[in-house]
Amino acid sequence: MPLYYQLGEILRAHIAQGDWQPGQKIPSEAELCAHHRLSRITVRQAVKSLVNEGLLFCSQGRGTFVAGRRVSHVVSELISFTEEMAQRGLAATSRLLEAKSERPVDRVRTALQIQDNEDAIRIRRLRLAGAEPMALQTAYLPGRRFSGIEAHIDHTSSLYRILETEYGVRLARAVEVYAPVVLKSSAARALQTTVGAPAFEVERTTFDAENRPVEFVMSILRGDRLQLTLELIRKRSAG
Amino acid sequence: MPLYYQLGEILRAHIAQGDWQPGQKIPSEAELCAHHRLSRITVRQAVKSLVNEGLLFCSQGRGTFVAGRRVSHVVSELISFTEEMAQRGLAATSRLLEAKSERPVDRVRTALQIQDNEDAIRIRRLRLAGAEPMALQTAYLPGRRFSGIEAHIDHTSSLYRILETEYGVRLARAVEVYAPVVLKSSAARALQTTVGAPAFEVERTTFDAENRPVEFVMSILRGDRLQLTLELIRKRSAG
Repeated sequence: MPLYYQLGEILRAHIAQGDWQPGQKIPSEAELCAHHRLSRITVRQAVKSLVNEGLLFCSQGRGTFVAGRRVSHVVSELISFTEEMAQRGLAATSRLLEAKSERPVDRVRTALQIQDNEDAIRIRRLRLAGAEPMALQTAYLPGRRFSGIEAHIDHTSSLYRILETEYGVRLARAVEVYAPVVLKSSAARALQTTVGAPAFEVERTTFDAENRPVEFVMSILRGDRLQLTLELIRKRSAG
Repeated sequence: MPLYYQLGEILRAHIAQGDWQPGQKIPSEAELCAHHRLSRITVRQAVKSLVNEGLLFCSQGRGTFVAGRRVSHVVSELISFTEEMAQRGLAATSRLLEAKSERPVDRVRTALQIQDNEDAIRIRRLRLAGAEPMALQTAYLPGRRFSGIEAHIDHTSSLYRILETEYGVRLARAVEVYAPVVLKSSAARALQTTVGAPAFEVERTTFDAENRPVEFVMSILRGDRLQLTLELIRKRSAG
């Protein structure tokens, strides 16, 4: 067995036995080198293999951490990312990457049912659970109806809360379309995971009680940290 | 622009303009070579790039066909693959790869809630819509309760129909867990698609009206041919 593999097994055991808990920072590369008397290349390779498996994650400039278990995204009702993480005892945060008005592409315009001369507000956020990036989301909102909403968005705010409390929107339903994709480098970098890793690509259109589109969201969800759980009810019989 | 790319654009136009319809067999490599005065390598590369994009598919020994549009798998109720394809006007067929009793691994035993000394019936099928492979499914059923069910399974039968009509099972609900994966060579070969292409990995446990597990199914669904569509209803308000 190569050395990096043996070290990988040792690190894996620390996680499996609970010596290292989810969210905990693991020793630095230098500490692992000294403790196990291994080269930096070997240590790096061992850590990378566990990162690839989703057992560890790296937070730029902060170190390497034990990943939480895979979060099950139970699809049954329309709730916000913030609400869903809270149900699991995880603090949702966002890193606001961009918020601005722009003339949208045709697909966004069609989804939002807005005129050719109307802008859309584009809100790009990295969604985290605890310190761990989970999803990269770009939400588009009709520009006239939600003029000025950019000012309300910060790193902790739930967009749904703002829509409901600040704009009086009655959210009613959403249609989501999931496809599996392979991560490209820009998304992998933002999500602090590996290029080529499997992920979900999701498009969501959310409607209010008057059946008007309120948002159109394109998301990339980490496949190593999120799974989708559905409950289906039998309504017919093949009888 | 390389020649294969130019030919790819021509083939793409045939599909986009509807000269070639979904399910239609396209000209053979030899015919394309002769018609476009291109080498076999160039033609093969052009066809392969369209296969990779999911616009064409190859059926071993039969030729290359125009793929249907991506089928939307609308998740709202528990219906069989056969029923779902029928709703879309597609004839579902199966290729039965294996059906036998075996002592199951722990995970299957736990899902089916069967004893250590009880067998499970393992039914491995390639599911097709028209001529096109869509999913590779391995279903496990409790061996005692469904003893002899292998004899009922053929290339067109719906397992749900057999359970309901032959065994009097009242199917009630299922829990499904979706994860994105990257296809390995064996699954890619069976699904007649590309190694490394994104796909859904799905685990389903189906329960009867008495809440007993009836089947545990592990599936790989082609990501280029299937997408998952959900409708979510807002039950709460953040207010």
